[in-house]
Amino acid sequence: MPEERLPSRSENFSEWYNQLVLKAELADYAPVRGTMVVRPYGWALWENITAALDSRFKATGHVNAAFPLFIPMSFLQKEKDHVEGFSPQLAVVTIGGGEELEEPLVVRPTSETIIGHMYAKWIESYRDLPVLINVWNSVVRWELRTKLFLRTTEFYWQEGHTAHATAEEAKAETRQMLEVYADFAENEAAVPVVMVRKSESEKFAGGVNSYSIEAMMGDTRALQAGTSHYLGENFAKAFSIRYLDRDNTLQYVSTTSWGLSTRFVGAIIMVHGDDQGLVLPPRLAPFQIVIVPIHKNEEQRRAVLEQTEAIRQSLGDFRLKVDDREEVTPGFKFNDWEMRGVPLRVEIGPKDVEQGQVTLARRDEKGRTHTPAEGVAEVVRATLDEIQANMLTKAREFMRENTHDPADYAEFQEVVKAGWADVWWCAEADCEAKIKQETKATNRGIPLDQTGGEGVCIRCGDPARERAIFARAY
Amino acid sequence: MPEERLPSRSENFSEWYNQLVLKAELADYAPVRGTMVVRPYGWALWENITAALDSRFKATGHVNAAFPLFIPMSFLQKEKDHVEGFSPQLAVVTIGGGEELEEPLVVRPTSETIIGHMYAKWIESYRDLPVLINVWNSVVRWELRTKLFLRTTEFYWQEGHTAHATAEEAKAETRQMLEVYADFAENEAAVPVVMVRKSESEKFAGGVNSYSIEAMMGDTRALQAGTSHYLGENFAKAFSIRYLDRDNTLQYVSTTSWGLSTRFVGAIIMVHGDDQGLVLPPRLAPFQIVIVPIHKNEEQRRAVLEQTEAIRQSLGDFRLKVDDREEVTPGFKFNDWEMRGVPLRVEIGPKDVEQGQVTLARRDEKGRTHTPAEGVAEVVRATLDEIQANMLTKAREFMRENTHDPADYAEFQEVVKAGWADVWWCAEADCEAKIKQETKATNRGIPLDQTGGEGVCIRCGDPARERAIFARAY
Repeated sequence: MPEERLPSRSENFSEWYNQLVLKAELADYAPVRGTMVVRPYGWALWENITAALDSRFKATGHVNAAFPLFIPMSFLQKEKDHVEGFSPQLAVVTIGGGEELEEPLVVRPTSETIIGHMYAKWIESYRDLPVLINVWNSVVRWELRTKLFLRTTEFYWQEGHTAHATAEEAKAETRQMLEVYADFAENEAAVPVVMVRKSESEKFAGGVNSYSIEAMMGDTRALQAGTSHYLGENFAKAFSIRYLDRDNTLQYVSTTSWGLSTRFVGAIIMVHGDDQGLVLPPRLAPFQIVIVPIHKNEEQRRAVLEQTEAIRQSLGDFRLKVDDREEVTPGFKFNDWEMRGVPLRVEIGPKDVEQGQVTLARRDEKGRTHTPAEGVAEVVRATLDEIQANMLTKAREFMRENTHDPADYAEFQEVVKAGWADVWWCAEADCEAKIKQETKATNRGIPLDQTGGEGVCIRCGDPARERAIFARAY
Repeated sequence: MPEERLPSRSENFSEWYNQLVLKAELADYAPVRGTMVVRPYGWALWENITAALDSRFKATGHVNAAFPLFIPMSFLQKEKDHVEGFSPQLAVVTIGGGEELEEPLVVRPTSETIIGHMYAKWIESYRDLPVLINVWNSVVRWELRTKLFLRTTEFYWQEGHTAHATAEEAKAETRQMLEVYADFAENEAAVPVVMVRKSESEKFAGGVNSYSIEAMMGDTRALQAGTSHYLGENFAKAFSIRYLDRDNTLQYVSTTSWGLSTRFVGAIIMVHGDDQGLVLPPRLAPFQIVIVPIHKNEEQRRAVLEQTEAIRQSLGDFRLKVDDREEVTPGFKFNDWEMRGVPLRVEIGPKDVEQGQVTLARRDEKGRTHTPAEGVAEVVRATLDEIQANMLTKAREFMRENTHDPADYAEFQEVVKAGWADVWWCAEADCEAKIKQETKATNRGIPLDQTGGEGVCIRCGDPARERAIFARAY
């Protein structure tokens, strides 16, 4: 097993990412262009993400269900903006059971239409509302330029779809789920985010307002890491989703949809990773701890493995891997697990056995410490909490350092080459388009948390009443 | 909400099933022919099934991963029997991103081929073996005659795919996973099963040997409820999955695959359901308990709801629903939750409050009992265990009563009209086909647990060395 080193992040961030995903065995390229295999280590990370989100969805009253993969083409056409937005990206089934189909079937790119159709069937009265359903599945969007986890033809995600009696309730739901995403990102993934409202040109095809959480990657580019859409009555009208209110009057429901995908795995890699490889947050890491026994002869081996087994049992509450491979050296194992981002390494050598201690090495900081074998679980728990907190602090620091408030458009053009610009903006689509064309920076959105006051647009100088974040983005 | 009664099982078992699935809100018909929506109540049941299976898979060393939905058509053609078996059932994508594709893509009907392709890439040495991967996903097989959960164009399942250094290891894996399924079926779902080896004509397309667990439904028809296939070197040769053994010689791996699907939800419905509706096993039921508060005036209401809240807290370890709807009567609620199969109902009325008790009504037996509010959790736990055990006992009894050992073919033809026949069989495909043609009973398989000895074939009279089960099947 010859070990090839990763390119450094500063040298080639993109190649560092591509190679790391493969070497850490998170994912692999699949035979059909643009599709990926999520390998067991990557899937375990995604499963931990899904568990952390799912418990939050359930705590806010949502239930899971499953809707079909195939949507009649005519359904998409019922919402004009929706079909326009998604048409270029569709995969279409034209043959079923050996015969040409009368109506082609779309492989779902998102499920608003088919879910709208079912909701129209299920919802009759105000008593049936709200409907709060989430789905875990995969969707297909034909992509020309793909990158593992970040942009793939098929990707895994959850899509929440809710229906409400009033616009106010639907708006509150949209906001609530955005906050759920932000809470998850910061407290589980240690990924700091900004909650924003998307501009008209960046919003969801068919929606009224879109919101997202935006995160800063290690190269300072932005990544939209989760979205929540207020759809108003658009889909209710397209699919006739109506209910009888308390006064026996027929009303349209208001709907929302919100999603977070395997893109988020990419965010975790790019926010925390370093030149040695992944750095995974303890709360989501497939293995929180790796134990590496170290011995040079049979006598040491017996004593070390006995102690390893005792420590393994003391640490039974953690997600843990004992690396007792005989064919590779401890040094190889250290590098291997560092590359895979395991938050904490526990080394047990003859000296550790002798001293009744273990050696700890944190993935997020250099150096080793020793701790008595007795009571190791408490120390490990506290250390993992420290690592989790430290990762968030470091990422916040990085985001703060690389978010700028340029004085003029010249400075703006400079800072968005390697950072975010948080600026006054005139809210005109035309100005937004020109900024993109001139600087490659896109409008990431209008932060919900506005400083207040007024200013002038960073580009055109027109009066501006809101600040927006511009950055190059994935 | 007018309540329409279900047809009785004896009157029309098939319609009883179809209506029950809809009324209990387990699933619904989706717009594309043959596809289904699994509604939240049905999905919660499936999630409990997946959790019970997943923990067993992990306990036997398996990990989860995800492989793409789209498989190049040419992959299927690499294994001759495989493509023959699946060709008539394929859904094919011919358009992607607005353009005709050069090579059509198959929407996976099962993933042996694409996983074989990836294993060939990943496996190099004996050190990489065994590979023990499971996938939770959905697959598509074009079906002409569909029935919710039992046969749908798209269905949800898990598919395990393992690769081993030797045939013996692969055979042991095949057998182990069959036993995992049997253990799950009996101990979680209270569904008794027979473990069988499939005849040549009933085996998996491309496999060497197929095994299944067979369950008897409430109308005595058989249902194949889970399958485990030993694939030998067939897929290893088709996809060049080879490894260097300890002697540095290149060898083919031996592979297995095994799956259990949302069909199993159908089995639970048809094994346990009665004329009032579903009867769900406590270990898998979305709600193990429903609490129904009963009150006639405001004073009663306050006291009853206070006690309801106290009981709810005492029962916090269980999956529980409090039905405090005001717009329907307690009688309506009783029928409603009976139809949905909740194992145990806890009624709390003014008299219960007065006496410091609760009233219990089991779904699996008639009648009510009372138990002190103090210590209710222990009684409930014991009662749920009794219900679980009683359901398995009753189902076993039913299976025993309806499994026959006919003396001759005339009697065979009679008993398979409403039961299983466990008979000596000559093992000839021709005889098997004629039995099917003459009686509609198919060979469900050769039980692994054979009585030994010899006999003569129930149909042709030729010498027979194995017994097989024949029955009409879903």
